[in-house]
Amino acid sequence: MSNVPSSANVFSSRPVHRAWLATQARLPVGFSVGTARFAFTPFEVPKTVEMTLTLIALDRPSADFAAVFTRNAFPGAPVVIGRARLAEKTLGAILVNNKISNVCAPGGVEAAERVCTETARLLHQQPHEILPSSTGVIGWRLPVGEMLSALPRAVAGLSADSVLPAAESIVTTDLFPKVRSVALEGGRVVGIAKGAGMIEPNLATMLVYILTDLAVPRDALRAMLTRAVEVSFNCISVDSDTSTSDTVVAVSSGQVACQDLATFEAALTTVCRDLAEDVVRNGEGVHHVMRVRVDGASTPRLARALGKAIVNAPLFKCAVAGNDPNVGRLIQAIGRHVGANEPGLDLTRLTARIGGVEIFAHGVFQLDPAKETVLSKHLKAAELYASAPPKNGVFIPPVDYPTHERCVEIEVDLGLGDASATVLGGDFTHEYVSENADYRS
Amino acid sequence: MSNVPSSANVFSSRPVHRAWLATQARLPVGFSVGTARFAFTPFEVPKTVEMTLTLIALDRPSADFAAVFTRNAFPGAPVVIGRARLAEKTLGAILVNNKISNVCAPGGVEAAERVCTETARLLHQQPHEILPSSTGVIGWRLPVGEMLSALPRAVAGLSADSVLPAAESIVTTDLFPKVRSVALEGGRVVGIAKGAGMIEPNLATMLVYILTDLAVPRDALRAMLTRAVEVSFNCISVDSDTSTSDTVVAVSSGQVACQDLATFEAALTTVCRDLAEDVVRNGEGVHHVMRVRVDGASTPRLARALGKAIVNAPLFKCAVAGNDPNVGRLIQAIGRHVGANEPGLDLTRLTARIGGVEIFAHGVFQLDPAKETVLSKHLKAAELYASAPPKNGVFIPPVDYPTHERCVEIEVDLGLGDASATVLGGDFTHEYVSENADYRS
Repeated sequence: MSNVPSSANVFSSRPVHRAWLATQARLPVGFSVGTARFAFTPFEVPKTVEMTLTLIALDRPSADFAAVFTRNAFPGAPVVIGRARLAEKTLGAILVNNKISNVCAPGGVEAAERVCTETARLLHQQPHEILPSSTGVIGWRLPVGEMLSALPRAVAGLSADSVLPAAESIVTTDLFPKVRSVALEGGRVVGIAKGAGMIEPNLATMLVYILTDLAVPRDALRAMLTRAVEVSFNCISVDSDTSTSDTVVAVSSGQVACQDLATFEAALTTVCRDLAEDVVRNGEGVHHVMRVRVDGASTPRLARALGKAIVNAPLFKCAVAGNDPNVGRLIQAIGRHVGANEPGLDLTRLTARIGGVEIFAHGVFQLDPAKETVLSKHLKAAELYASAPPKNGVFIPPVDYPTHERCVEIEVDLGLGDASATVLGGDFTHEYVSENADYRS
Repeated sequence: MSNVPSSANVFSSRPVHRAWLATQARLPVGFSVGTARFAFTPFEVPKTVEMTLTLIALDRPSADFAAVFTRNAFPGAPVVIGRARLAEKTLGAILVNNKISNVCAPGGVEAAERVCTETARLLHQQPHEILPSSTGVIGWRLPVGEMLSALPRAVAGLSADSVLPAAESIVTTDLFPKVRSVALEGGRVVGIAKGAGMIEPNLATMLVYILTDLAVPRDALRAMLTRAVEVSFNCISVDSDTSTSDTVVAVSSGQVACQDLATFEAALTTVCRDLAEDVVRNGEGVHHVMRVRVDGASTPRLARALGKAIVNAPLFKCAVAGNDPNVGRLIQAIGRHVGANEPGLDLTRLTARIGGVEIFAHGVFQLDPAKETVLSKHLKAAELYASAPPKNGVFIPPVDYPTHERCVEIEVDLGLGDASATVLGGDFTHEYVSENADYRS
């Protein structure tokens, strides 16, 4: 997916991956990060849980920031506040907590603002310069007192070396921290991500923070971020569930002059696309990343919707999980979407390929035993890891790093027009069910 | 769900269920059924598989028949033919095969017509009086020669006693045959169903055949079937995948005078609703049936779409599977649907209940530890069976009959209007993944 080699990430072992992560993670000039972890007992359930605060601070508040939020009609309190922050003159810091998403909880906005006010006091900034961000259980209340007590430790630990501590502390049960960066024109674009899908029981969110020292004016940055999100995070789906807290933020410290906005936008888009792919690769229980390219559509909207219909079709996702080249389920998924949403669309010119092999054309399947063998090999080569039957029935992924970046490559050409889209998704596995049904509180 | 007591089905053991099935299954006057099983080797894969033919014959072809077919844009050859049959004057028999769905296979329509012609010859009927129906692998070709050879055995075995042999031979790996009937006015309405979701690897279809001896004119029967399907089969979802072969047929032999069409329509609707519920209860890997009632919607379309969004939300389905009253995922699913499809809809008056317990009102959750306990008990009481961790990692349901008819009862009131809908769906379990990924050919 990447056009910029410096962001490529192809591994075969955890140490290689960790070394690569360290090189990616160097902070742009003008930023520092600090974290603090603490235990508490939620109001709603009588048990001890642990929360981590992650503070991303600018040396000087910046006017050049952008953010895109979830379209869920029940947005979390941090999303409500974040939308209002877009109207403020400057952004000085982002404070992220995991474990509780602060969605539809009584007094949620007031609780988040209280924490922002204390963060601002400690950083000598203004409360409206602090962007709150939360992920975790929907419905529970923030432990405001405990968060205020822990904040000084996060501030005291602020360091300008690496974004890796932040990438590691915003994750929950993600398999690995996600960092992608591109160096250009003497500066850097560095992004981190948490998610997607359910990462831990009761949690469901994707959070992305992109930091740069290149000076990009606020309006340009906002327009670029909207475009970059459209072709990256809006083109992925792990399980079709849209979180109430999804957030993508981009901030420039303005420390390095940017000569060419187009080059910057290409770098920003690369970081977004690579992080989006990482998020799918780290999706809960994902064994295969599917990359669906839809061409020949009459509109970009149709191309993307059809791609999403394919990566979200449960039966096809299960077949891919089993390395089963069940092409009938692919055609079923296309037919289901078109029948329900675009009745009458002419499908007579539709062709479909998996791993470069044509499997459908002229209204009928193009199959033979030799093709079946090639398709099975393609699926096996794209598998990130194989399930090991567990003794207690609870499936746990046996790896904690991305073993490679190969995808199941699916191409559909409608033969109707010039529009196209690329959509990424994951398969459906026992590890997904275990994470979301077996590991319950 | 049933309003007619004779169709109620509450069991605690397989023998009780079998005895009840036998009483339900008596054929209406004017019908007979016969079956034939045979082995063959498909063109596409070098292995032996078994197919069953199921023949449902009328003593005399009838003008009074109705059918509703899949909206999938890649319909199977039997669906293409079936739509044309609706214009014919009379229907004389239905011939069903499992194992191969005859979808997008080269020469599929010609193959199905060839089998119809031979069936007609054996029954002394006309080829256009035979309705073909298929379920199974998408893309494979029908074994026409072997089917023609087996047909005489199905015809020779025709019997007017019970529909149970047909209900048992149209299923594949369904846990149990599905039969529902209502007696009224000296006649009977008897329905059988196969499906839903994937019942065997590579298969995905719901087939329903409803037989009655009550004389209902063709136009009235067609209008009634369309209305009955709208509130029954169109309100269920096991996995959101619409088959290329879904078919619901209703046929009257006209042997018993029908005094009151409204009473007949109520019976027809009851049979459809009860079969629809059975299909969900027998959905692949389903541990819990969810019944979502949406009230207070501005339109029936919104009510049903919201109900479907809830029963199809993977994370909520997993939580239900785990008896986890994760109300946050319910609200997330509602918010996702509204945000994506009805942005701007006023959700401030929304209330939600599970098992009669209010969990959301006035824009915030209404939760406490006591309610959590009640919700957990409600989920456990609705569980059909519990997963037993298998030694080889492949989960297999430990029951082959419906253990009870209790559902997870979810009520959402939008407070916007008078429209409502009831939607049924299943949870998401290891058994689902095992059926669709682990058992591969």
